[in-house]
Amino acid sequence: MIKIMVINGPNLNLTGKREPGHYGSETLDEINIWLQKQGEALGAELTFFQSNSEGEICDAIHSALQDCQGILLNAGAYTHYSYAIRDAIAAVSVPCVEVHMSNIHAREPFRHESVLAPVCVGQISGFGKHSYILGLQALTENYRVKMQSS
Amino acid sequence: MIKIMVINGPNLNLTGKREPGHYGSETLDEINIWLQKQGEALGAELTFFQSNSEGEICDAIHSALQDCQGILLNAGAYTHYSYAIRDAIAAVSVPCVEVHMSNIHAREPFRHESVLAPVCVGQISGFGKHSYILGLQALTENYRVKMQSS
Amino acid sequence: MIKIMVINGPNLNLTGKREPGHYGSETLDEINIWLQKQGEALGAELTFFQSNSEGEICDAIHSALQDCQGILLNAGAYTHYSYAIRDAIAAVSVPCVEVHMSNIHAREPFRHESVLAPVCVGQISGFGKHSYILGLQALTENYRVKMQSS
Amino acid sequence: MIKIMVINGPNLNLTGKREPGHYGSETLDEINIWLQKQGEALGAELTFFQSNSEGEICDAIHSALQDCQGILLNAGAYTHYSYAIRDAIAAVSVPCVEVHMSNIHAREPFRHESVLAPVCVGQISGFGKHSYILGLQALTENYRVKMQSS
Amino acid sequence: MIKIMVINGPNLNLTGKREPGHYGSETLDEINIWLQKQGEALGAELTFFQSNSEGEICDAIHSALQDCQGILLNAGAYTHYSYAIRDAIAAVSVPCVEVHMSNIHAREPFRHESVLAPVCVGQISGFGKHSYILGLQALTENYRVKMQSS
Amino acid sequence: MIKIMVINGPNLNLTGKREPGHYGSETLDEINIWLQKQGEALGAELTFFQSNSEGEICDAIHSALQDCQGILLNAGAYTHYSYAIRDAIAAVSVPCVEVHMSNIHAREPFRHESVLAPVCVGQISGFGKHSYILGLQALTENYRVKMQSS
Amino acid sequence: MIKIMVINGPNLNLTGKREPGHYGSETLDEINIWLQKQGEALGAELTFFQSNSEGEICDAIHSALQDCQGILLNAGAYTHYSYAIRDAIAAVSVPCVEVHMSNIHAREPFRHESVLAPVCVGQISGFGKHSYILGLQALTENYRVKMQSS
Amino acid sequence: MIKIMVINGPNLNLTGKREPGHYGSETLDEINIWLQKQGEALGAELTFFQSNSEGEICDAIHSALQDCQGILLNAGAYTHYSYAIRDAIAAVSVPCVEVHMSNIHAREPFRHESVLAPVCVGQISGFGKHSYILGLQALTENYRVKMQSS
Amino acid sequence: MIKIMVINGPNLNLTGKREPGHYGSETLDEINIWLQKQGEALGAELTFFQSNSEGEICDAIHSALQDCQGILLNAGAYTHYSYAIRDAIAAVSVPCVEVHMSNIHAREPFRHESVLAPVCVGQISGFGKHSYILGLQALTENYRVKMQSS
Amino acid sequence: MIKIMVINGPNLNLTGKREPGHYGSETLDEINIWLQKQGEALGAELTFFQSNSEGEICDAIHSALQDCQGILLNAGAYTHYSYAIRDAIAAVSVPCVEVHMSNIHAREPFRHESVLAPVCVGQISGFGKHSYILGLQALTENYRVKMQSS
Amino acid sequence: MIKIMVINGPNLNLTGKREPGHYGSETLDEINIWLQKQGEALGAELTFFQSNSEGEICDAIHSALQDCQGILLNAGAYTHYSYAIRDAIAAVSVPCVEVHMSNIHAREPFRHESVLAPVCVGQISGFGKHSYILGLQALTENYRVKMQSS
Amino acid sequence: MIKIMVINGPNLNLTGKREPGHYGSETLDEINIWLQKQGEALGAELTFFQSNSEGEICDAIHSALQDCQGILLNAGAYTHYSYAIRDAIAAVSVPCVEVHMSNIHAREPFRHESVLAPVCVGQISGFGKHSYILGLQALTENYRVKMQSS
Repeated sequence: MIKIMVINGPNLNLTGKREPGHYGSETLDEINIWLQKQGEALGAELTFFQSNSEGEICDAIHSALQDCQGILLNAGAYTHYSYAIRDAIAAVSVPCVEVHMSNIHAREPFRHESVLAPVCVGQISGFGKHSYILGLQALTENYRVKMQSS
Repeated sequence: MIKIMVINGPNLNLTGKREPGHYGSETLDEINIWLQKQGEALGAELTFFQSNSEGEICDAIHSALQDCQGILLNAGAYTHYSYAIRDAIAAVSVPCVEVHMSNIHAREPFRHESVLAPVCVGQISGFGKHSYILGLQALTENYRVKMQSS
Repeated sequence: MIKIMVINGPNLNLTGKREPGHYGSETLDEINIWLQKQGEALGAELTFFQSNSEGEICDAIHSALQDCQGILLNAGAYTHYSYAIRDAIAAVSVPCVEVHMSNIHAREPFRHESVLAPVCVGQISGFGKHSYILGLQALTENYRVKMQSS
Repeated sequence: MIKIMVINGPNLNLTGKREPGHYGSETLDEINIWLQKQGEALGAELTFFQSNSEGEICDAIHSALQDCQGILLNAGAYTHYSYAIRDAIAAVSVPCVEVHMSNIHAREPFRHESVLAPVCVGQISGFGKHSYILGLQALTENYRVKMQSS
Repeated sequence: MIKIMVINGPNLNLTGKREPGHYGSETLDEINIWLQKQGEALGAELTFFQSNSEGEICDAIHSALQDCQGILLNAGAYTHYSYAIRDAIAAVSVPCVEVHMSNIHAREPFRHESVLAPVCVGQISGFGKHSYILGLQALTENYRVKMQSS
Repeated sequence: MIKIMVINGPNLNLTGKREPGHYGSETLDEINIWLQKQGEALGAELTFFQSNSEGEICDAIHSALQDCQGILLNAGAYTHYSYAIRDAIAAVSVPCVEVHMSNIHAREPFRHESVLAPVCVGQISGFGKHSYILGLQALTENYRVKMQSS
Repeated sequence: MIKIMVINGPNLNLTGKREPGHYGSETLDEINIWLQKQGEALGAELTFFQSNSEGEICDAIHSALQDCQGILLNAGAYTHYSYAIRDAIAAVSVPCVEVHMSNIHAREPFRHESVLAPVCVGQISGFGKHSYILGLQALTENYRVKMQSS
Repeated sequence: MIKIMVINGPNLNLTGKREPGHYGSETLDEINIWLQKQGEALGAELTFFQSNSEGEICDAIHSALQDCQGILLNAGAYTHYSYAIRDAIAAVSVPCVEVHMSNIHAREPFRHESVLAPVCVGQISGFGKHSYILGLQALTENYRVKMQSS
Repeated sequence: MIKIMVINGPNLNLTGKREPGHYGSETLDEINIWLQKQGEALGAELTFFQSNSEGEICDAIHSALQDCQGILLNAGAYTHYSYAIRDAIAAVSVPCVEVHMSNIHAREPFRHESVLAPVCVGQISGFGKHSYILGLQALTENYRVKMQSS
Repeated sequence: MIKIMVINGPNLNLTGKREPGHYGSETLDEINIWLQKQGEALGAELTFFQSNSEGEICDAIHSALQDCQGILLNAGAYTHYSYAIRDAIAAVSVPCVEVHMSNIHAREPFRHESVLAPVCVGQISGFGKHSYILGLQALTENYRVKMQSS
Repeated sequence: MIKIMVINGPNLNLTGKREPGHYGSETLDEINIWLQKQGEALGAELTFFQSNSEGEICDAIHSALQDCQGILLNAGAYTHYSYAIRDAIAAVSVPCVEVHMSNIHAREPFRHESVLAPVCVGQISGFGKHSYILGLQALTENYRVKMQSS
Repeated sequence: MIKIMVINGPNLNLTGKREPGHYGSETLDEINIWLQKQGEALGAELTFFQSNSEGEICDAIHSALQDCQGILLNAGAYTHYSYAIRDAIAAVSVPCVEVHMSNIHAREPFRHESVLAPVCVGQISGFGKHSYILGLQALTENYRVKMQSS
């Protein structure tokens, strides 16, 4: 059983309530419930966290050090300038996968660069709520391979 | 009656206590009281919020979704790099007017660009505490025009 | 009684005739008449000038030296590259407020920077014809404060 | 019969008198006479305007609103920085074709970018006086197509 | 049954033969066979194409117009400068998902920007051969949603 | 009789089949037939070549050395980065005119700069299929002048 | 007796637990205890604060206004983009010394620029936990000199 | 006898009336009278022109073609962006010397680059009204050398 | 006996036929024959390949994996933007020496940067056909040293 | 006993004689004598060198190879562009600490970047002559730790 | 009597021996003798110094502190990057006039910016050896004015 | 017999003593002796010079004017910023070949650009001490060709 922390950043608490064009019409809670089921099928136990605060996201990442084997992170706008979150990921060295519901590389130029990417395993962007599932699979697969080779 | 949330960002709690050259000698509380009176004259009910935290400012903007018809925002230094606050404004789509006491376009280069502007109705900059009154008028006028045309 | 020169730059003579989306449907003359009335209420005597020529706008600013206590300036596209107009404002040192009907900070990148701003009192941008009223209030208020403190 | 205004910008009044390497040896008047004949063959009535002044070029473009169906514009050096002329073209929305006698894309870097291009139908550059004929054909063809489809 | 074209760009024919650190130790043929099996499980019929030539990749994308409902594309180094491939994707408008075995956002700066992204559905980067599976799922899911809503 | 090679670059084989907004609804073959007729009227014999491959376009340009007096080139996206094609044009020194159906200077920034322009006679951009006719006239006129002066 | 507030920013709570190569193997608490002893020897009373939140760091700086004569600040990643913290330091005008355990000028380019430096007395970077001692000495010396000259 | 046209650009008509720190306390007329006397001593006949209009400055430069052997030009702010004036100087090829009363290279960055310099003989900057005398000497000396070598 | 593949990129097939100023007057075949003789003297067996196609150059580099111990590469214009060729060289890890007949660092700015250099042993530029001999010597010497130390 | 070479670069010989605002009022000799005493207390033997010549500073650094265990370097303006000095420090690999009397990060932008920093242990900036003492402590502490761990 | 030090920088010792197109055909010694005579007429006593060494130029500037009232400086290529020389001029605060024989603003871009200008009185550029005379006059005039006002 | 001056710049006197990874393990003297022998075989008489001083390297280049027919220059770090050395090479116009032991184009970005290259015959980079031999051959070959064609 792999334990994964799912972290959502600023404004993602409004998902499904606002801007369905970019982010779909399901709420974050609905997405999380659906995601949890998918996690069970993949042998993953998920905990969920959302905050609009950069500092609380750092705190959450730190707490993953205790007993998580993976972080699934949608850092929202912080993706593009939060070197504090980047340093948090680098410090805990729990494998982290970056996900985005919209295709950030097809939006405004400031969204093309992720300052988090250099310390993440990989990045998935553009598939709506499905980005989370893909990220979850990537994390569990990554874990499975590491377990086998150790 | 239009309800307006007045949001002040980082370090504006020190207004009137420090750097009178840039920001005048009245405290933020004094400005708010004076502003409230002006609001009454314009048929606007004001609520006030101040925080140094980017996340709490996002939270406040989200809360405006409930029952506000306008946001009067002085985001301080966050004006120039907080894409999280920008996304919050875009998400709630309550009309937002950006105000600055000093003329940000006449100060250091990093203060010339507002990352919030693309999602705001307009911007007022350089008139000390009077910037708030002008912003308040702009918001109420904006509301009056919208009511008429609907 | 404060005397204010209202200067409109290139293409603003077409206001109300073209591109109502950006600039509203009233003509510049209609705006000026309405503005004059507002001026009277504020104890301000207004004179109006419009030109598409950078040189004539400089001339007009110079002429404000004679007997104006304020300049209300919408320099149109010249806002973004006319260092000649900037030098004219700096040379006469009559308080100048920069106004824009559209929110220049939300349009094309070349419209985000004002080369005039460093020599102006402040900037108001994005409120259609109402930007002029707000600018007028800012100028008269600025004048009132200066008179009191002298 | 299509009415077209041919506008030449700064220093083009010296054409044929100076720098034949870049601009050929015929004077602007000679080119205009020759162009007028070509226009007649294409069913176009041409009026001609030349000025070294950015403001007067804006005025001329505004005047095209009255009774012209096309503008043939060689804005000379203003091509590369006159956002005022750009706004004038956008404001009148008469189809405008940009022409240059020399190949601006093969000269100094500052001549590679046209700030007018985003509001013009198209651009022709590098064929000496023949650039005007090609531009004239493009405008009349553009007009013919529009008439047919309306 | 959805038909998907899997396109691999320059140097990916060497996968598994060289640089296992970046790209794993399985050959492209082995990956394709494994991918085909996964495709069958997802109700997708896959065809495979690899070329080191930018022009041939454009040709292949054009051919997808005939009878494919999706393109899974790893354009290798062309990702970062081939506007020709970008235009090919835009022209055929078959949904295209961009995949990368290594995390391009964590490598040299020139690999951070994808010129293809603005015309793709989404991007998956950093999960070795598993990136292909995730991309395949994304494409089939994307297709399923579109079928349901039509 | 002047012999001219008409070269079309990447994705132009899809002309008329896709994106009619940018490129019109006639196919490249139809445009070529129509162009050939126009060529006959101008005393020009045309040969046609299209390829999506940068290398094959270089080859075609080289072959123009044999018996062509002009090249009419729409290099598509290669216009903006193919220094190889630029060197090919410079090497053969057959007069080359660059044409574009859409107005490249009014589209995305990467399309504003042509790396081919410094070695071409001139550039025509924005007139749909008519850009080819204008380019053809420019080439034949250029040839006529050269013949006269020799 | 000089009172000094020691403020540590994001991720420094993990010091000694993670990345010993960059930050040494002692925990922040151990460093603080050791630092307090050194402070006593220098006649300085120290209070300690750590937070991952930009807003709370601003709050702490504001609180230094009450009764501190110096701030010893390691703002971690916020050093490079927090204009809010910069404004907080400027607003309180308590002398502030910037310290960094690693040599920020020898790491990634984004760590070379400190946006805080223009409002700080000085900067010390690269000496592990010893950077704090050096900063403490600098602050007490700075205070001693000021006391003497007043 | 050498005939020289002295051209002063925007805002220089205010010289001596405003900003004495940058430009001295003599008026432009006083400077011109003094300059004329110096010219007589050097065998130079001077004519004077001042305008705030870029177009009129181009016109004046064109008129120098008739009977001037030198141009002494202080183009004010146009120095830094008027490619139209640059083209005018290049077109007439009358030797032109650029003068500036203040040291433009020691002021704001936008004043460091002169777009006119590449077509001028030389540049003199920073010596108040004396810059004009130095420029006059340079022009007459330049003329004397040319006469001798012809 | 060391086997070396000599690869020439776009437009080098025209060497000796065009632009002798930059590239000398011998044809590529003549250079190759002369180079082969020099190779024999150095104990090197040479095979030759030329193509204008980026993809075919990648293919050729891949083929060097079979039985070559060195690559002598003049990639022409691709030197400056072909990350595909760069990745090909990195993938095969056969020692590669970059040669240029003209001094690329003394020509247009776009020719100053080689994107291939980071994966090559070294670069020789500016000595006409002699650059190939120098490159050949460098490769054989490099091989001799490696053989000795193994 | 640790031997340390104290190197001062260009214009520091004028310290105390000029610009006391930036650099204090003690001469370099006085600072050196005071520093020597501090060195004795720390068990360090100091030698002093000052030069305005980049080459001589390189020579001095090379000489440190003989018998120094540390270099205390204030390279003055060379800090910002002397890659020769940087290479000298890298070549000798004697631990080097960079000191600056003024806070270089708070002055002109060209002083914000140190090209020496990537090869130094750390940097101390902004504490007047006290910067030298802090640097000396850092070097001796650095040496003490290295001795203990060896 | 004003004492002036004339300093020539790198490669100016070759003046008159090499590159007469840029620098004329008189040697530096001949220019100095001629300059000395002119100096006498202006009541100035000149001393001369030339060096190719940045450090020695700093030394010479320092020595001007003793008994010079002006420096006439042609720093050659150092003009564009020697912040050490800039600091030397700032440190001695003897009025310094920058001269250049060629028009540096009309040559390669790297010669357009002078890093010395911000600390010099003014700059004269483009008049061959005559630039020195003009600079000398500027310095003596500057001195005369200062003497009068003191 | 051709006379060649071999000039080595800053820190190359440490060759063979430090950083063997970049520069090999032979000392500069050993390389020079070996090079001299190679020179004899090629009919070249070599003189050697090394300095860490930019000014002395200029002096040495000037001295080559007397009786050298070639300069072999490894300017070390000065390669990347010494416009003084560039001007020295241009002034003497003795053919100069630039050599580098390491492949500068594969190291830090600041080493990719050579400011000397535009005035050198060619550049050789990346072959350790062998770079000198290759440079020597290039110079003697260059001389042989020039002798033959004269």
